Amino acid sequence: MRNIKLIIQYDGTKYKGWQRLKNTDNTIQEKIEKTLSMIVNEDIKIIGSGRTDAGVHAFGQVANFNTSSKINVEELHNYLNTYLPQDIVVLKAKEVDERFHSRYNAVSKTYLYKIWNNKNSNPFLRKYSEHIIDRLDVKTMKEASSLLIGEHDFTSFCTTKSKKKSKERKIYSIDIKRNDKIIEIKVIGNGFLHNMVRIIVGTLLEVGKGNIKPEYVKEILNKKNRSFAGPTVSAKGLYLVEVEY
Amino acid sequence: MRNIKLIIQYDGTKYKGWQRLKNTDNTIQEKIEKTLSMIVNEDIKIIGSGRTDAGVHAFGQVANFNTSSKINVEELHNYLNTYLPQDIVVLKAKEVDERFHSRYNAVSKTYLYKIWNNKNSNPFLRKYSEHIIDRLDVKTMKEASSLLIGEHDFTSFCTTKSKKKSKERKIYSIDIKRNDKIIEIKVIGNGFLHNMVRIIVGTLLEVGKGNIKPEYVKEILNKKNRSFAGPTVSAKGLYLVEVEY
Repeated sequence: MRNIKLIIQYDGTKYKGWQRLKNTDNTIQEKIEKTLSMIVNEDIKIIGSGRTDAGVHAFGQVANFNTSSKINVEELHNYLNTYLPQDIVVLKAKEVDERFHSRYNAVSKTYLYKIWNNKNSNPFLRKYSEHIIDRLDVKTMKEASSLLIGEHDFTSFCTTKSKKKSKERKIYSIDIKRNDKIIEIKVIGNGFLHNMVRIIVGTLLEVGKGNIKPEYVKEILNKKNRSFAGPTVSAKGLYLVEVEY
Repeated sequence: MRNIKLIIQYDGTKYKGWQRLKNTDNTIQEKIEKTLSMIVNEDIKIIGSGRTDAGVHAFGQVANFNTSSKINVEELHNYLNTYLPQDIVVLKAKEVDERFHSRYNAVSKTYLYKIWNNKNSNPFLRKYSEHIIDRLDVKTMKEASSLLIGEHDFTSFCTTKSKKKSKERKIYSIDIKRNDKIIEIKVIGNGFLHNMVRIIVGTLLEVGKGNIKPEYVKEILNKKNRSFAGPTVSAKGLYLVEVEY
């Protein structure tokens, strides 16, 4: 069996997230699987690097699948972009070693969160960023973010619905940049719990608005209790940027 | 009567253009007029700096209207952004001299055309740019664009449907910039004929693809015949950036 790796970009606005679901076909995984199966005339199941929630976007999601089809990879790539919906684009398709596994082999992931920080909303970013009216203090947000770097138990930054046993994750870096009215928060880590980036951003926003002090983030970590962290920000501002192997 | 000036930003994707039409209420002018009339409880007609076609966007369209309402302008501004659809945002509302007229007083206009120049399409720009697969030669496009600067009869760059008598217009500048896969063409002129920017861009694209020589643009101007210029590019890549007074 051949093993094909895909790098996929998508506008997640209208989807119920990456992962195939029982009661809807409106997931990104299902759209790709159906298109692939149609192209190679075989029942294809793809393995994603991980789920993205409903409304979350991707610049570079990674997936792989096995096929006995002999189709040329470049041809497959062209067919995919011809038949997939316009809001899902395959950037690369490549034949890889049969041992490659998108989820198990992932070493780290990079996420980006985009904020439009202005009184007036932005009609072009309304589906692609979180709109925050209060002027955010990026300096204190950076201070707070530095306390999250390293290996920690992120129970406080994880939805209570999560069934994962270990809540230990390692964050390599958090970069926060303001470019006029756009603030971008880039988080790189070895793995992320459910809603972890969105709760981290929600907490940093509380710091940036002056509602909590930057040092308090240490205490939130120590509490190991979701209720101490900030709210989960909306999905539309979140992008899976890349997956490193 | 008070005279209020508005600066308006809109994502034109789902509208039939700026100008009020008889058989649809899906125009930007009508959405704003209905919202204003509701707020000040008076029948309001607004004057735009000019039309934008179906699907064209605006970073800074200008309009003005008269009202006998005594409403505070800041309050009016807030109400407008509360009640307008999310893809129309009023950036500024200001009381101005009663003689100010958005259309008659406009001295020049700035338009931007955005191109995504890459093999793969971009799911985030699919509604906000024209996708061109062939690598465009920006150098020859710049050469060609320089021949359009100044006062010319732009009959060749105007839809044949136009009923305007004089086709003389003055272009002050055309800037073409490549930033990786995005090419932006900015055109400033004292006024534009119907479809003029889109036909100019369509012609520059033919130059950039190597289909016609840059010098040929001079001949297209001289022919004063629409059929010699390039095709009208799609509306979704076009933005009215600002109107100068």
